[in-house]
Amino acid sequence: MQALSVRHLLGIKDITPADIQLIFETADNFKEVLNRPIKKVPSLRDITIANVFFENSTRTRLSFELAQKRLSADIVNFSASGSSVKKGETLLDTVNNILAMKVDMIVMRHASAGAPHFLSKHIKANIVNAGDGTHEHPTQALLDAFSIRERLGEVAGKKVAIIGDILHSRVALSNIFALQKLGAEVMVCGPVTLLPRYISALGVKVELNVRKALEWCDVANVLRIQLERQQMKYFPSLREYTLYYGINKKLLDSLDKEIVIMHPGPINRGVELSSDAADSKQAIILNQVENGVAIRMAVLYLLASQV
Amino acid sequence: MQALSVRHLLGIKDITPADIQLIFETADNFKEVLNRPIKKVPSLRDITIANVFFENSTRTRLSFELAQKRLSADIVNFSASGSSVKKGETLLDTVNNILAMKVDMIVMRHASAGAPHFLSKHIKANIVNAGDGTHEHPTQALLDAFSIRERLGEVAGKKVAIIGDILHSRVALSNIFALQKLGAEVMVCGPVTLLPRYISALGVKVELNVRKALEWCDVANVLRIQLERQQMKYFPSLREYTLYYGINKKLLDSLDKEIVIMHPGPINRGVELSSDAADSKQAIILNQVENGVAIRMAVLYLLASQV
Amino acid sequence: MQALSVRHLLGIKDITPADIQLIFETADNFKEVLNRPIKKVPSLRDITIANVFFENSTRTRLSFELAQKRLSADIVNFSASGSSVKKGETLLDTVNNILAMKVDMIVMRHASAGAPHFLSKHIKANIVNAGDGTHEHPTQALLDAFSIRERLGEVAGKKVAIIGDILHSRVALSNIFALQKLGAEVMVCGPVTLLPRYISALGVKVELNVRKALEWCDVANVLRIQLERQQMKYFPSLREYTLYYGINKKLLDSLDKEIVIMHPGPINRGVELSSDAADSKQAIILNQVENGVAIRMAVLYLLASQV
Repeated sequence: MQALSVRHLLGIKDITPADIQLIFETADNFKEVLNRPIKKVPSLRDITIANVFFENSTRTRLSFELAQKRLSADIVNFSASGSSVKKGETLLDTVNNILAMKVDMIVMRHASAGAPHFLSKHIKANIVNAGDGTHEHPTQALLDAFSIRERLGEVAGKKVAIIGDILHSRVALSNIFALQKLGAEVMVCGPVTLLPRYISALGVKVELNVRKALEWCDVANVLRIQLERQQMKYFPSLREYTLYYGINKKLLDSLDKEIVIMHPGPINRGVELSSDAADSKQAIILNQVENGVAIRMAVLYLLASQV
Repeated sequence: MQALSVRHLLGIKDITPADIQLIFETADNFKEVLNRPIKKVPSLRDITIANVFFENSTRTRLSFELAQKRLSADIVNFSASGSSVKKGETLLDTVNNILAMKVDMIVMRHASAGAPHFLSKHIKANIVNAGDGTHEHPTQALLDAFSIRERLGEVAGKKVAIIGDILHSRVALSNIFALQKLGAEVMVCGPVTLLPRYISALGVKVELNVRKALEWCDVANVLRIQLERQQMKYFPSLREYTLYYGINKKLLDSLDKEIVIMHPGPINRGVELSSDAADSKQAIILNQVENGVAIRMAVLYLLASQV
Repeated sequence: MQALSVRHLLGIKDITPADIQLIFETADNFKEVLNRPIKKVPSLRDITIANVFFENSTRTRLSFELAQKRLSADIVNFSASGSSVKKGETLLDTVNNILAMKVDMIVMRHASAGAPHFLSKHIKANIVNAGDGTHEHPTQALLDAFSIRERLGEVAGKKVAIIGDILHSRVALSNIFALQKLGAEVMVCGPVTLLPRYISALGVKVELNVRKALEWCDVANVLRIQLERQQMKYFPSLREYTLYYGINKKLLDSLDKEIVIMHPGPINRGVELSSDAADSKQAIILNQVENGVAIRMAVLYLLASQV
């Protein structure tokens, strides 16, 4: 059997195009399984996985949990609220305690960038990064690229615009790495106050005008704007953002081609994306969610096969 | 096999007496299973059910979860706290996301009346309403009627008084519908400030005097009084309520017959029901809890069989 | 098959040395299972266990949950937050409700000393006390003694010092009982303000000087100091505690023998125990965690076998 070049999935930065290809082909198989009446396979029957979420994330946790159940793994959930983390325990002690209970893999979300990378140097179990601050969220990037490949046949040569709050996104960086490794051209688009300073060093095009970005791209990955911004004194305000960067069907119809619309969810309908755009046929937002389970099954399966 | 007339269990209002009969007969079988040493059946082995609770309800969630486990279903739990709901996602988006992960059924509690009915018009999966605001709570009404049938042989022709805070109850309306469909006579009894205005339109007797209600009925379903009322300026206060509407063994013994005492729990001992009444042989409160698992197994099984 | 002398594990006080021996031998077997690739046994396949935690305890709950999963039991988790407990329901009603749903065993943590003992007089299911206030925490004491036996061959004749906040510990009392029943000599050591008044009645040595305690013992069980103390006006403060009672490698190396270091977790590194001591070879802290799963499997298995 083919194997991944890594023991952990910490970020897209660390894996090769061949790794991504292997994950995609494995996910193809699992996606077929998920469309059968019997959606379960015994692949990870003797594996125990701990979902260790130091930050809440119902959506990502649910997707991982379903992937684990379809693979017949045993699951324990650990969330930081009310746990020993609050009692001043270190991250390494918390995880070592969980592992001492004979847990084989750790799926982990943490508010601090680099937390899973730090752990990976000190523990033996496989780690899957389910989001470390605004740094990487590799399974999201994989399911996004997988969904583009599904809709457009391949990722190589495609033009993808990532639109919105790039600065605070946990999705943008991993997406840029994945798309570039697969041979796509990447553009980021958003107000200058929501673009990170290091962005030009990443080899992506930068565009401030959303219409120009849409005219350029084959795929627009529209990021979520935090509603919390409305109460703050940031520029742009939520209203300004919608006015200048909000995407609706009228704008999409005015382009001379039909582009693919993606969104990592949860959508703020009427803010970054209008309902007629989100629910249109050119949107593949629910396909992304569906593919998320298959991609996570593939990642867990491939990492566990290496043990 | 017989089938239900509906694809969802949204409320008792929407189902037929034959549906209720079918659910009861199926629950009879499952209750037998629950009394065996091996309490599990493989009926829903390839079904995934999401318990989507936008309001906390340990007791109802636990009963559904046990019913699902006895049926060998796969379960994922989604609760609103800390979820994307807080991030401004719409109800429909939240549920569509869960369904995109290949979930077959949704058991749902929501604070808003009509939430599951709205959903049922937009999604393909079966929905079981586990309480929508103070509107319907159909599985509670089914387990209540099932428990009356178990104790008294049948529901038809029996006189049932629902006593207490009818206005804020999520149990009263479903109970009235179920009892009427099964041929029982229904009375509601409580202080006038805790009776909804529309009550007379439902074809039930209304009685303000609790002794008269008890003298009339074969079964008294005693509802819970919210302890929170004590701190408020409502009439009646908790003390006044207990004084005029509290039911104790002395009152029950002063009747010229032995009536059946029910309570949906959790009981405020010493408020709406005294301990000697709650723990007496005429109370079937724990039978209600036990029957809840069998009824929920029956509902889930019958809905899943239609897919 | 041999059997325990009790139907519940409420505390070490109630069980015999032969019971402890039986639990240890059963745990030996389960520990072997946990070191195999297939870590699951079908022993409790038809048993349903409710983990009823009225206080948060991620670590203990996780250990019990993994033990239950390895035994193939069905599990439901009940936590007090957001439950009917908040609605004023009595402890007995809460547990009777859970049992009416055909649950076979209750693992329970409660803030009040004696809560599981009270319950055991009123319900039929087996109860495992997972900590009742600062009273007993029997599975912790069993895993601690089991870990000493594993490292030193036997417990009888060994000298064990329990060091730290004996007064607020839920671990100390159960440990004293277990060690004494197994024939060890026990000393407690800590500032006089953190020693309970009744301590001398328990037949243990009392020592205020930590160096003298370490010089005396074969094993030091170092308890956790609550960080919350820092904000309070207690004597000693956290800084004073570390100064006079903190254990580090330098102190350990200055002894004329190598003692075993234990800690029930979570560790406050740099407070009661330095990192070089906690991570040294003489520490068996992670072995304690690992043994916790085997011990809990043994307890659940032996109690369930009696039903």
